[in-house]
Amino acid sequence: MDTGMDDGLQLDVAIIGAGVSGLYTGWRLLVGDLAEGGTRPSSVHVFELSERLGGRIESVFLPGVSLAAEIGGMRYLQSHVIVNSLISEVFSQELTPQDFPLGDDKNHYRYLRGQRFKADEWANAQADRRTFKTRYFLPDDVVGFDSDQLFNKVIYDVLMADPWFQERYANQVKFTPPYDYSFELTARDWDDIKPNLTYRKPGPYQGKKVNDLGFWNLLKDQVGQEAYEFLAVAGGYYSNTINWNAAEAFPYLVGDFSLASVEYQTLNGGYDQLGNTLAQRFVAQDPSGKRAHLWGQNGLTALTAAPEGSPYRYVLTLNNVQSGKSWTVYANAVVLAMPRRALELIGADRFFTRPQVSAQVRKNLDAVISEPSFKLLMGFESPWWNQEFQAVAGESITDLPMRQCYYFGTDPVNSHSILLASYNDMRTTPFWSALMDSPHQRLERFKPRPTALASREALAQVEDLQAPAVMVAEAVSQLQELHGPANPVPQPYVSYFRNWTEDPYGGGYHAWRAGVSVRDVMPFMRRPDPDEHLHICGEAYSDQQGWVEGAFCEAEKMLQAHFGLAWPAWLDSQYYLGW
Amino acid sequence: MDTGMDDGLQLDVAIIGAGVSGLYTGWRLLVGDLAEGGTRPSSVHVFELSERLGGRIESVFLPGVSLAAEIGGMRYLQSHVIVNSLISEVFSQELTPQDFPLGDDKNHYRYLRGQRFKADEWANAQADRRTFKTRYFLPDDVVGFDSDQLFNKVIYDVLMADPWFQERYANQVKFTPPYDYSFELTARDWDDIKPNLTYRKPGPYQGKKVNDLGFWNLLKDQVGQEAYEFLAVAGGYYSNTINWNAAEAFPYLVGDFSLASVEYQTLNGGYDQLGNTLAQRFVAQDPSGKRAHLWGQNGLTALTAAPEGSPYRYVLTLNNVQSGKSWTVYANAVVLAMPRRALELIGADRFFTRPQVSAQVRKNLDAVISEPSFKLLMGFESPWWNQEFQAVAGESITDLPMRQCYYFGTDPVNSHSILLASYNDMRTTPFWSALMDSPHQRLERFKPRPTALASREALAQVEDLQAPAVMVAEAVSQLQELHGPANPVPQPYVSYFRNWTEDPYGGGYHAWRAGVSVRDVMPFMRRPDPDEHLHICGEAYSDQQGWVEGAFCEAEKMLQAHFGLAWPAWLDSQYYLGW
Repeated sequence: MDTGMDDGLQLDVAIIGAGVSGLYTGWRLLVGDLAEGGTRPSSVHVFELSERLGGRIESVFLPGVSLAAEIGGMRYLQSHVIVNSLISEVFSQELTPQDFPLGDDKNHYRYLRGQRFKADEWANAQADRRTFKTRYFLPDDVVGFDSDQLFNKVIYDVLMADPWFQERYANQVKFTPPYDYSFELTARDWDDIKPNLTYRKPGPYQGKKVNDLGFWNLLKDQVGQEAYEFLAVAGGYYSNTINWNAAEAFPYLVGDFSLASVEYQTLNGGYDQLGNTLAQRFVAQDPSGKRAHLWGQNGLTALTAAPEGSPYRYVLTLNNVQSGKSWTVYANAVVLAMPRRALELIGADRFFTRPQVSAQVRKNLDAVISEPSFKLLMGFESPWWNQEFQAVAGESITDLPMRQCYYFGTDPVNSHSILLASYNDMRTTPFWSALMDSPHQRLERFKPRPTALASREALAQVEDLQAPAVMVAEAVSQLQELHGPANPVPQPYVSYFRNWTEDPYGGGYHAWRAGVSVRDVMPFMRRPDPDEHLHICGEAYSDQQGWVEGAFCEAEKMLQAHFGLAWPAWLDSQYYLGW
Repeated sequence: MDTGMDDGLQLDVAIIGAGVSGLYTGWRLLVGDLAEGGTRPSSVHVFELSERLGGRIESVFLPGVSLAAEIGGMRYLQSHVIVNSLISEVFSQELTPQDFPLGDDKNHYRYLRGQRFKADEWANAQADRRTFKTRYFLPDDVVGFDSDQLFNKVIYDVLMADPWFQERYANQVKFTPPYDYSFELTARDWDDIKPNLTYRKPGPYQGKKVNDLGFWNLLKDQVGQEAYEFLAVAGGYYSNTINWNAAEAFPYLVGDFSLASVEYQTLNGGYDQLGNTLAQRFVAQDPSGKRAHLWGQNGLTALTAAPEGSPYRYVLTLNNVQSGKSWTVYANAVVLAMPRRALELIGADRFFTRPQVSAQVRKNLDAVISEPSFKLLMGFESPWWNQEFQAVAGESITDLPMRQCYYFGTDPVNSHSILLASYNDMRTTPFWSALMDSPHQRLERFKPRPTALASREALAQVEDLQAPAVMVAEAVSQLQELHGPANPVPQPYVSYFRNWTEDPYGGGYHAWRAGVSVRDVMPFMRRPDPDEHLHICGEAYSDQQGWVEGAFCEAEKMLQAHFGLAWPAWLDSQYYLGW
């Protein structure tokens, strides 16, 4: 990325944000087939505040390990057709997909309310027709359900209680007593169901649209507060059970977290290669850097209509981080490829000249909830999880503030290994933010320790990136409590962390609020004012929040509707891009 | 309040915010004795965005009940010397203190993890040398402690583990095994202890200042995550146990919530009479409205230095809510008597011309955490809590999202009664905000029901103020679950609610962050730049957060240090106002 500046630069399209939606937009604008009447922009530049590409996707190589570790988004699903097509077809020369294994539940721990057990306890008990009891005081009819099964049960029960659903989709869902639920509903089906589904249970919510209910409200009404707490904790992610839009939560959970059979993939060498490849293909369109250019460490601070008579529509003010100086860019179209918090920080609602559009943008920025999330990586000299309890991949879960750890992998050559020592979100992130540097206190960094393979020199280069020593010590203590005294946790030799809650991200992912008409807000954000050429796209205002695919679908719909691009030849023509 | 405008108005002092700190400041500026060399401002006007006086103190009269109900701050302590002096001496003609009774634990419920019991179970068991067991899986050595005792134990243990403390204060704290702890530390003592206390326990936090630890970090380290959860839930307030400054948490808890003997008071006719009386005494200084004036529904939108040559220092732009028009006020000094969120909404950091002061203000605005809080009132035709289980006052507590209810009182004449049906904060407020109107959905209001004493006409006047029907139904359902089937909860006839989380408040109260040097930030906020006459005061940046007394102490210190006022004659000359 070019971290310089070029005052007075004139562009057809300026893209703000070099996360995956911005990079995808830039690449597609320059290489995508045009629809009839479409015209190719003569110049497309991408501006990024940070020094990194990829936004909330960030792969990390810790000294001594040749494996990539993910500190941000880390995987994708087979159902993510754009991501799969890019990786396996369009960029098959650059990218190699790789399984993201989940390991075997029998080697993973659950440690909830001080009760330690293996993750397959539920399945084992169910196979023996026993009931496995946790320390959650659940209603009799759901004791023995694991959290995935219980999510499924609630969703199934709510769907089937509505005659409207029964009439249309009953044969696409199935319940095999006592624990098995399956759903064969497509994204298109869900876009029919989400706004139409009515809640049918006597009580406070009787007769309301599920879309108008919070997911917490609904879960508590279905199974009570203790079972709600069980779902929130045992599922691993507090974000899944916050009081977000219940109708949006249904396909999100059924399509992913609650499917025992779900298979994840990632990229050999790190998931951030997807963004890197988009960037490379984009800049390759013009090695001279005129038609295509990536600007790093340049943040948008203002956007106004160009003065009367200017050949360009918009004047952008960029702040160069290194010099602290401002410079001006002219553009005819601007794509804000950013999450909610970043849009608010730059005051994106004020970019729209009509007051009613401004107000509508402000309202719709608030249609999603930014979800705090925090990740901490540790490097170990050997995979103690494998040596001690045969874990090779996948996660253990606890209600301790660390919440989840992922056994990421072991260097095949040298046995140095990576642990995602904590992956936590929502109500637990403040536990960790008090153990981070703040404007009010500087903390001593963890001191990396040379190993046979991680040299003092290599470690010196990551010294400044280490987590605070107190954070590492606290996380090791929680890892020890989670795994129990039978499984001693050694000291890591290196660490890395990120709190995605911090500016300009505001969170690791997003969730729609209850009561929002998602099918209206999504297209609105892609072009809030039909008379302006200002666009908002990205994961935040998508219907696959938290996923790269959501970001791509929004960008793609924006490109086809507002930038004259044709449906990509490499993309299944039947693929449903959503609202 | 005058809701009009007077473009070009010229003032000595403009106070922004008619909460208790702003009103106190206005009144004191006009009537307080001057210190040597002090000069009386010739004009002091207070500007308030809302149509109400009192800020986060708001007393409500529901139709049919002559008792005041509190939807905001509701009480004070004997240790609050300014509040007590004002009520009992200065305003004794206008105000009548009244006990805020806590009732008797034997008539109150606890409903935690589905276990329902009376609040005196712990005390009864302890008297019988039994151990009362809840559904929290506590460490052996603290099983049987109630939450107040456990808070005390942790604080005592941490204090006494530090030789520095032992040497100086050991004889001011006392432990009588097995459950009783007492603390006789003054506010002055605590101001010595808070920055000096060191954490002495092997583990991640060994040797750190308690001031640099989060309270959650410390509690978990002392008693583990399950006991932390017990403290967070059973204590009634999630806000008490968020990961705020541990050193600040100590006196806060020991001085109030954990003292079984603590006695609260309020005002006959509503606690908001304190603000009302301040306002009356203030405007009475000049019935013509020139020297003293209260402007309502006028919000500050900009503040800049006056142009060279102007006889006034500052130019304020106010927005008149009713007309939507802006007007200009000139002033020589400005007091921003507002909480954190309000200060951020008006961009208070940008009011300071020196960039380094601006940056420091921005940093220090973030030194406190805004704490979401939510209250819901209901009126009933008779006090079912008294008829069914003899409760007369005080609260029941649960881990259901309603968290606490307070049995407020019964009209002595007509038996109509008021319940604070939910008082909840932090992680539970989103449960309720999805049951509120938002820009994205309008909900049907609860329909007030006429009674023998609340006429259809009286109720019609509060129809627009009713909580959404779905919120009332959900709260009644939780009240029923908390109190159990033996205690049927009837339908209320009227409701009232407020989510203090919403703009411009940002929360009901505030808490200092871990690692903040509170003794520096407090005086800084009262005058961030010694060359400017811009001041910030209020509860948020006080050391008695959540209390009117905190707001008054900050205002008083600001008035004496920066406005030339003498120590008030009505205030005990030995009273310690804090940092």
